[in-house]
Amino acid sequence: MNSAMDLLIAELARLPGIGPRTARRLVLHLLRNQEKTLPPLIHALTRANQEITHCTQCGNLDNRSPCRICTDEARDDSILCVVEDVADLWAIERSGAFRGRYHVLGGTLSAIDGRGPEALTVNALMKRMEAGIVRELVLALPATMAGQTTAHYVAERAHTMPVKITRLAQGIPIGGELDYLDDGTLTAALSSRLAY
Amino acid sequence: MNSAMDLLIAELARLPGIGPRTARRLVLHLLRNQEKTLPPLIHALTRANQEITHCTQCGNLDNRSPCRICTDEARDDSILCVVEDVADLWAIERSGAFRGRYHVLGGTLSAIDGRGPEALTVNALMKRMEAGIVRELVLALPATMAGQTTAHYVAERAHTMPVKITRLAQGIPIGGELDYLDDGTLTAALSSRLAY
Repeated sequence: MNSAMDLLIAELARLPGIGPRTARRLVLHLLRNQEKTLPPLIHALTRANQEITHCTQCGNLDNRSPCRICTDEARDDSILCVVEDVADLWAIERSGAFRGRYHVLGGTLSAIDGRGPEALTVNALMKRMEAGIVRELVLALPATMAGQTTAHYVAERAHTMPVKITRLAQGIPIGGELDYLDDGTLTAALSSRLAY
Repeated sequence: MNSAMDLLIAELARLPGIGPRTARRLVLHLLRNQEKTLPPLIHALTRANQEITHCTQCGNLDNRSPCRICTDEARDDSILCVVEDVADLWAIERSGAFRGRYHVLGGTLSAIDGRGPEALTVNALMKRMEAGIVRELVLALPATMAGQTTAHYVAERAHTMPVKITRLAQGIPIGGELDYLDDGTLTAALSSRLAY
């Protein structure tokens, strides 16, 4: 077709979950209503590019650093929640069930992908805990092999410190039908069964 | 979260096929590798916005008007292919099976959506044909109710002109299993059966 169009299709197709076909469809949508769609999108991307930064303290994304969670006076400094990435932080925030602070690891350990501890923010996490304010470390890491390996590693590193180390409960999801659950979840839910 | 982020999520979620969840995921991806992803995307969108325009002759999108298909000397002026939109034009171009010119209608007739003939480029199409160069009009419109209504309307309008009016063949797709075909396609394939 032409270079400006090819370039835009190629750029959009680089985004996760968007293939060349979807990228073409998006470009057509954008160009069909050009004045209404392109300038606002360019504006939003430019603002994001200029304003949003990683919080140097916890790793969250915000237009200030330290971010508004780190600077929120109403939050509990004594409980620190360790998450794999910012998406998980946002998910926990949406639940509204946590009022402590966060620490974003920036990934999980993976021998296959060659991601060792130095690729994560574990050292920064240890430094944060040395101040002695944190009393509980919640390891909110994914229930995958990589997530659990990472949780184990962080727990090992922190175990000399006077903090309680906890992890998320595993069990049946709310609204979950037993029939559709995988065996692992059902086993975890049974072995962690609670008094009624 | 914060306004620049919310704005970008909202803008991305306006795109077709992208909901708030996918938009959040895209924003996180863009911000995780900010320098590598955001500036090239902004650049590509800005170039597309500045350079790409609708061809005043056929309705194609290109960085010049008349577009490179309309100005391509090697193409056959006597055969004109009528398509619903630019995506269909691109699809036919990808097939490499057509070397004539195009005319983009810009939609199909739809009483439900209140789209009458004046919303399409039918008048411009008639004007193009008055020059007397076009010998065949290929109605490459979708095999839907709206597409067929539109094809019928265009054929009616053109039937006083000395052109052959054709439409795409209907039948089983290449590689198609009969077992999985809908009855309509199978009926069309049978009634248009060819000598072996």
